[in-house]
Amino acid sequence: MTSSTSLLQALTDRIGADHVLTGDAAAPYLTDWRQRYTGAAQAVVRPGSTQEVAAVMACCAQHGVPVVPQGGNTGLAGAATPDASGKAVVISLQRLQQIRAIDTDNDTMTVEAGCILQNVQQAARNADRLFPLSLASEGSCTVGGNLATNAGGTQVLRYGNTRELALGLEVVTPDGEIWDGLRGLRKDNTGYDLRDLYIGSEGTLGIITAATLRLYPLPVAVCTALVALRSMDDAVALLARSRAGFGASLTGFEVMSGVSLELVVRMFPQQSLPLPTSPWFALLEVSDSESEAHGRERFETVLEGALEADLVQDVVIAANIAQGRALWHLRESISLAQSAEGKNIKHDISVPISKIAQYVRTTDALLQDLIPGARNITFGHLGDGNLHYNLTRPETMTEPDFLARQYDVYRVVHDSVHAHQGSISAEHGIGQLKRDELLRYKSPLEMALMRRIKDALDPKGLMNPGKVLVGTGDGDSAVTGD
Amino acid sequence: MTSSTSLLQALTDRIGADHVLTGDAAAPYLTDWRQRYTGAAQAVVRPGSTQEVAAVMACCAQHGVPVVPQGGNTGLAGAATPDASGKAVVISLQRLQQIRAIDTDNDTMTVEAGCILQNVQQAARNADRLFPLSLASEGSCTVGGNLATNAGGTQVLRYGNTRELALGLEVVTPDGEIWDGLRGLRKDNTGYDLRDLYIGSEGTLGIITAATLRLYPLPVAVCTALVALRSMDDAVALLARSRAGFGASLTGFEVMSGVSLELVVRMFPQQSLPLPTSPWFALLEVSDSESEAHGRERFETVLEGALEADLVQDVVIAANIAQGRALWHLRESISLAQSAEGKNIKHDISVPISKIAQYVRTTDALLQDLIPGARNITFGHLGDGNLHYNLTRPETMTEPDFLARQYDVYRVVHDSVHAHQGSISAEHGIGQLKRDELLRYKSPLEMALMRRIKDALDPKGLMNPGKVLVGTGDGDSAVTGD
Repeated sequence: MTSSTSLLQALTDRIGADHVLTGDAAAPYLTDWRQRYTGAAQAVVRPGSTQEVAAVMACCAQHGVPVVPQGGNTGLAGAATPDASGKAVVISLQRLQQIRAIDTDNDTMTVEAGCILQNVQQAARNADRLFPLSLASEGSCTVGGNLATNAGGTQVLRYGNTRELALGLEVVTPDGEIWDGLRGLRKDNTGYDLRDLYIGSEGTLGIITAATLRLYPLPVAVCTALVALRSMDDAVALLARSRAGFGASLTGFEVMSGVSLELVVRMFPQQSLPLPTSPWFALLEVSDSESEAHGRERFETVLEGALEADLVQDVVIAANIAQGRALWHLRESISLAQSAEGKNIKHDISVPISKIAQYVRTTDALLQDLIPGARNITFGHLGDGNLHYNLTRPETMTEPDFLARQYDVYRVVHDSVHAHQGSISAEHGIGQLKRDELLRYKSPLEMALMRRIKDALDPKGLMNPGKVLVGTGDGDSAVTGD
Repeated sequence: MTSSTSLLQALTDRIGADHVLTGDAAAPYLTDWRQRYTGAAQAVVRPGSTQEVAAVMACCAQHGVPVVPQGGNTGLAGAATPDASGKAVVISLQRLQQIRAIDTDNDTMTVEAGCILQNVQQAARNADRLFPLSLASEGSCTVGGNLATNAGGTQVLRYGNTRELALGLEVVTPDGEIWDGLRGLRKDNTGYDLRDLYIGSEGTLGIITAATLRLYPLPVAVCTALVALRSMDDAVALLARSRAGFGASLTGFEVMSGVSLELVVRMFPQQSLPLPTSPWFALLEVSDSESEAHGRERFETVLEGALEADLVQDVVIAANIAQGRALWHLRESISLAQSAEGKNIKHDISVPISKIAQYVRTTDALLQDLIPGARNITFGHLGDGNLHYNLTRPETMTEPDFLARQYDVYRVVHDSVHAHQGSISAEHGIGQLKRDELLRYKSPLEMALMRRIKDALDPKGLMNPGKVLVGTGDGDSAVTGD
């Protein structure tokens, strides 16, 4: 019996043959959803409970076999795809789907890692509560993946990243032990913050199997507006005015370049832009705890002030929920419109809000020097200083010629982000995609501190090797272009 | 030259003789402000900059001498007091008082660790912004201490603990290196969350020398109300109703037993209780981003609803800022009133809000079994599930007899907290006070994970030994009663 057969047998003994996948059955788990990375694995296992995850982990540890935890496989940095060596076991958490508890007096819910985000949102809503995490892949991403990557999305301005929405965790360690840190407490100063160490560590320190999440009251009314802006400077000034005027009711502040929205209405003619085109647009969302009428009235007061101050060129306030959805749909269609236009070079960056206008001006110019005629499809969560700063080929350039410049573009964009005290990964994580970039922008000291933590919590290097930090020499997944 | 003289000379060379204190000059730094702990040290040093902190740390590391970082020396768990061995050097951060930057567009400020909290609040206010951390010792505690202990306070319900208010840190490592993690970003997913690991670690992993903090818009109006409640159950129900009705405008929800407030007005006759006495009271604060009139109107609507639902027995809404301050003053006077009544046995606990009424009922009864006639002075931040669950002697019992039962009381209270899935230190930290208690309530796995992190980041065990985790055999500070 080879070592691999003996491992597969041991895994089968623990969780049943139906949940130890190889060959064709395993294939969907070995490529990320954008088909950018493809790896190989001894098996893909689908444990059905925390205890089974622990048993699988202990078994892999015994065999000295590395593991790759995987949630909904919707990540954007290749963190859930194994490398090409075929040594690893992929542990899919998708069967851990229980909502263990909803506590409306404590405003918390405890859910397993494999729960689809949308189902968690819905379960909260059924209990008359809001779970505010909201992002494009919410129909298929899992809470475990959201936690592992500290996902962001459109409500961070008000409710924070996934990190801020988690009060407690349950984690399986590389030895196959279970840490029960499922606390539903808003204050707990009893030692080191293990929770936040696992959150955002992309499966490289342990496997998150469940979490206790914060809930909020459902807003009474949600109001949406689209405004036209002359410049990013005006967008930043409008954000400050909105934060002061709406306080914590301001739950969304998205910015979109005119080029982005023109592309949307060109690609999807059934959508229309309710305002004349403009260099920039912002989408504002206010969640009111009082009434629809009050929310609208506040919107009118603040936005009229902004019009009078000549900060805003034009405003449309959604008259009803359907109109509000249509405005959000414009925003959400940018990624698809962009893909329809051809492959593009993407960045998920953040800079301090006070530097964002200068960042865009400077970097746009640098990119025009690099690739004259390249089109910026810039949009994102201005309220968080987070832009999806994407580039599409010049109309006169072929796609292969454009994509051949990808690493040059990364370099210009990320160097500029760094010069503006920003982050090269605001909400998508590092995975394999930006692992080597990290070495360029983090100080050697910070890399050394991270390495010490990795070695302390995963001394055998079994947890998702080669992600976030440079691994022990195994090959990466095969990259097949963007 | 003894090893100690050589160390003191080296420290003097680095930061000047004026800032290397021994003998009487050092004494104030060797006892905590409640005079509960007294330790000894080779010297107390007062570096004036991050670079000097690093130089001092490198020097101590070279000499193999442990260090005890200290901020305003207002901690409640003895974390800033050295042990009795006299081996350590106390590093006071009080001279690091610079406010390095205020960025109103980014809503952040960067301050040094030694800044007094009140000065930071004021600097923010001068820039038309709110830094919301607020706690009893704000006139003398430092931001570095707040970060090291992850301080809580009265605004956590809306703005979070100190942890949630820090975006970035600067830290001196045990080797005397400087980690520049001073990022002003709301989204940054580039590797392990070192920031949150240092926050709350009570100086046992490194020395926080500066931080980039979040700012918020100043509210337009702050309204305050005191309500009389029949029971803790009603208080919890009112909290839920208030969260739904006020949304994020609810910035304070404090609960106080009738006994606590009766003690205040008895001890401080110049204060008066504007409502007839009642088993429980709650103090509500709403911060409105619209107007004084709107805030009051909302208050009236929500509290009238609560009166009609028979959740609330009586209400007084402050008519102006002075009346609001007087209501807060009642709340803030409880600790002093309690001290005036004699020494008492204190606990800083949290439980899930849904369990808090049951916790109080159960634990009150257990304590009556233990010490019949003991008086509960229970108050705290109900919105965070955090109670200062304190006990005063029965009127018929002497103080020494009562204090002799201290460890029995701790045991009953903390066992009950644990049984209710709570925390034995909600906002004060572990320090030396609860270090051994921790071993009783944390799982061996969690203790082992914490130990591994300690060993990874402070392999020589030089950082604040004997705090949070059991140290390497040095003695504790001398305990001189409560």
